[in-house]
Amino acid sequence: MRERDRQAAFLLLDDKGMEGCLLFVVADSIYSGSRGAEILTDTMERMRRHLIAMHECPGIGRALLSLIVQSGRLEEANEIREREWEDMGLKPHQVQSLLDGFRPERIEMRRRQREKGEMSVVTAFDAEYPPLLLETKDHPWVLYYRGRYELASRPSVAVVGTRVATAYGRHASEMLSAECAGCGLTVVSGMASGIDTSAHWGALEQPGGTIAVLATPVNKPYPYENKELYRKIGESGLLLSETPPDAVLKPYMFLERNRIIAGLALGTVVVEAAKGSGAFRTADRALAYGRDVFVVPGQITSPRSHEIMKWLRDGAKPVIDAEDIWGEYVSQLTELTSLPMSDLLSKSGTTPSPNLSADEASIYELLLDRPRSIDELSASSGMTFGLLHSVLLSLLIKRRIHQEPGFVYSVL
Amino acid sequence: MRERDRQAAFLLLDDKGMEGCLLFVVADSIYSGSRGAEILTDTMERMRRHLIAMHECPGIGRALLSLIVQSGRLEEANEIREREWEDMGLKPHQVQSLLDGFRPERIEMRRRQREKGEMSVVTAFDAEYPPLLLETKDHPWVLYYRGRYELASRPSVAVVGTRVATAYGRHASEMLSAECAGCGLTVVSGMASGIDTSAHWGALEQPGGTIAVLATPVNKPYPYENKELYRKIGESGLLLSETPPDAVLKPYMFLERNRIIAGLALGTVVVEAAKGSGAFRTADRALAYGRDVFVVPGQITSPRSHEIMKWLRDGAKPVIDAEDIWGEYVSQLTELTSLPMSDLLSKSGTTPSPNLSADEASIYELLLDRPRSIDELSASSGMTFGLLHSVLLSLLIKRRIHQEPGFVYSVL
Repeated sequence: MRERDRQAAFLLLDDKGMEGCLLFVVADSIYSGSRGAEILTDTMERMRRHLIAMHECPGIGRALLSLIVQSGRLEEANEIREREWEDMGLKPHQVQSLLDGFRPERIEMRRRQREKGEMSVVTAFDAEYPPLLLETKDHPWVLYYRGRYELASRPSVAVVGTRVATAYGRHASEMLSAECAGCGLTVVSGMASGIDTSAHWGALEQPGGTIAVLATPVNKPYPYENKELYRKIGESGLLLSETPPDAVLKPYMFLERNRIIAGLALGTVVVEAAKGSGAFRTADRALAYGRDVFVVPGQITSPRSHEIMKWLRDGAKPVIDAEDIWGEYVSQLTELTSLPMSDLLSKSGTTPSPNLSADEASIYELLLDRPRSIDELSASSGMTFGLLHSVLLSLLIKRRIHQEPGFVYSVL
Repeated sequence: MRERDRQAAFLLLDDKGMEGCLLFVVADSIYSGSRGAEILTDTMERMRRHLIAMHECPGIGRALLSLIVQSGRLEEANEIREREWEDMGLKPHQVQSLLDGFRPERIEMRRRQREKGEMSVVTAFDAEYPPLLLETKDHPWVLYYRGRYELASRPSVAVVGTRVATAYGRHASEMLSAECAGCGLTVVSGMASGIDTSAHWGALEQPGGTIAVLATPVNKPYPYENKELYRKIGESGLLLSETPPDAVLKPYMFLERNRIIAGLALGTVVVEAAKGSGAFRTADRALAYGRDVFVVPGQITSPRSHEIMKWLRDGAKPVIDAEDIWGEYVSQLTELTSLPMSDLLSKSGTTPSPNLSADEASIYELLLDRPRSIDELSASSGMTFGLLHSVLLSLLIKRRIHQEPGFVYSVL
């Protein structure tokens, strides 16, 4: 690659956030002959390889990678000497890590590791890097994935919240995610217990599908209790992570992961979250990226709902029905999905359908006031245990009520 | 009163909404001599007496009274003949009712009835008519009251909702009303079961106090289960009604009552309400009067909260803390109450204080997920029944939890 062209390319690199896409535009316009395109392709391939190698070096973080990319020396990074790295401000252990990481046998070992883990890799220099994520100024340089990668470029919303969710929070998360994904929106979340898990389960079998952004490598289920969900998302959804295979897990990775969730999505829906939780960080990043933040209301006396609802005062959008979310993105959805508009609109309305029999409705009314035991329900309704049992079963199947230990029932 | 002056006065009457106040201003400005003021006082007294007499006639509604007031014949209404009434479009039974109502012995009987019922009367021509209510175009011409009438001119908010409220709704209503009244706002409601009742109980002992606007006459408790609340409001609050003593109760009176609640208040707070309920009408009137409408969020799966939260999309204000309500009216409060600003601000923050012991916090956490029985709590917490009992009692006293039949506990 000639010096002038390389400078032109790196000038574009400096224009933060649009690297990969723009470079490919350049390939078509500056290099009209096939020879020029070939040179650029070679250059890109080298830069891409170096980016992955460096990203996988222990002790080399995103900030350091950005520094090297911006210095314009990525293409020749494997030829940089120890002293030069030190002059660039790297610490001795980082320099050793890099020199080790560029050894061909090491690169080959890493490649085999990814192959064995059945994971693919994409860099910010690739055309297929998720476009919305590329727009964020702190996007990952390298991403690993397993599953239906095409989901990463679809219009999506993040649905996130606390691990210690209430039954209501989990139900709302699953219901809203199912409806959004039913309308063609991909649902992004973090596969943590609680709200995240419910969001994935809700969206999994719907047309929009779901993306789990992990803090851990994509070849291992985490948390382990979610191994069934992990397996299903690997099959019909997408598992995505910035963390290289076999990386040592650090707490900051869970925080950093949240920026990817916010960055992939058009908007972030927070279902239930306590102050200082990861979901707060995701919402914070979404705001920083200029994306929408949605809040699912709950009881003002619930610590899980109280804090997040304060955002409503600052313009966050309340989610009363799933349509409050997907309705914002109808234009993107109709452009990008094959679902006709009438199908989308028929999916609206979050509340369960009111098709209850008179008996069901009367029991539901009693439970609406407060949870009650089966004995109480029998006394209040005057129904026989046999009838009451079948009515409760029907309400359970219709997902209108919830059974608690000791045959206590409450509304969902 | 000379014809020219009477015309001037009625010109002002036509300028709907400011009758009483403006007439008193006129008394000071047009009639500079004491003789003029005396004439006006006599006129006003006659008009006032006729208004009350006509208002108390069966079959004579607010619209008909407005017609007569606007015709300019109120002062001589007792001299209008049968044929003239008929020419004005009144039906025979209405004419009979009016002719009967103007009989001196009838007027005296009515006066004794009010005296016996320990109720006072105020008309839209009186300076002490509630000023905010007077601004509404369909305000009552006559109001009856019992209790601290000065509350009717204080800055107030209406707190209303469904009779079939949930435990959460009743708790939120009482808590928010207590805080608003604690900051000096008077809380107006309709003394119905459910949300209204909780609002009154919350505000009753607070500096702002409470006004119950009844559909029934003020000398009778309604609903009867609220007789203790009725008695207390009569003592330290204000009972207010448009309905004359011994009037036959009609369903429309309950609907009409809601406009008075909305009209008295700077804003209306809806806690929980099903579609088509009276609280919907109160909110609707508040909007028509250009007043604020506040919505207390709840679970989106609750039919009691779902419908009212839709108003958030149209600009209704969400109430996360009581300060979302009283914060809007701080200027009126500091002008009108003797509470210093620092006192007001120290009242902010709706959530119960987080002063829980470690044991209390761990039980609270367990209940936050879902209601549990005392057996379950004992098993999950590992506490002895003795300790668990004292912890639950403490949480009950601190109003953080709620005991349900069968020793099942849930968070408030």
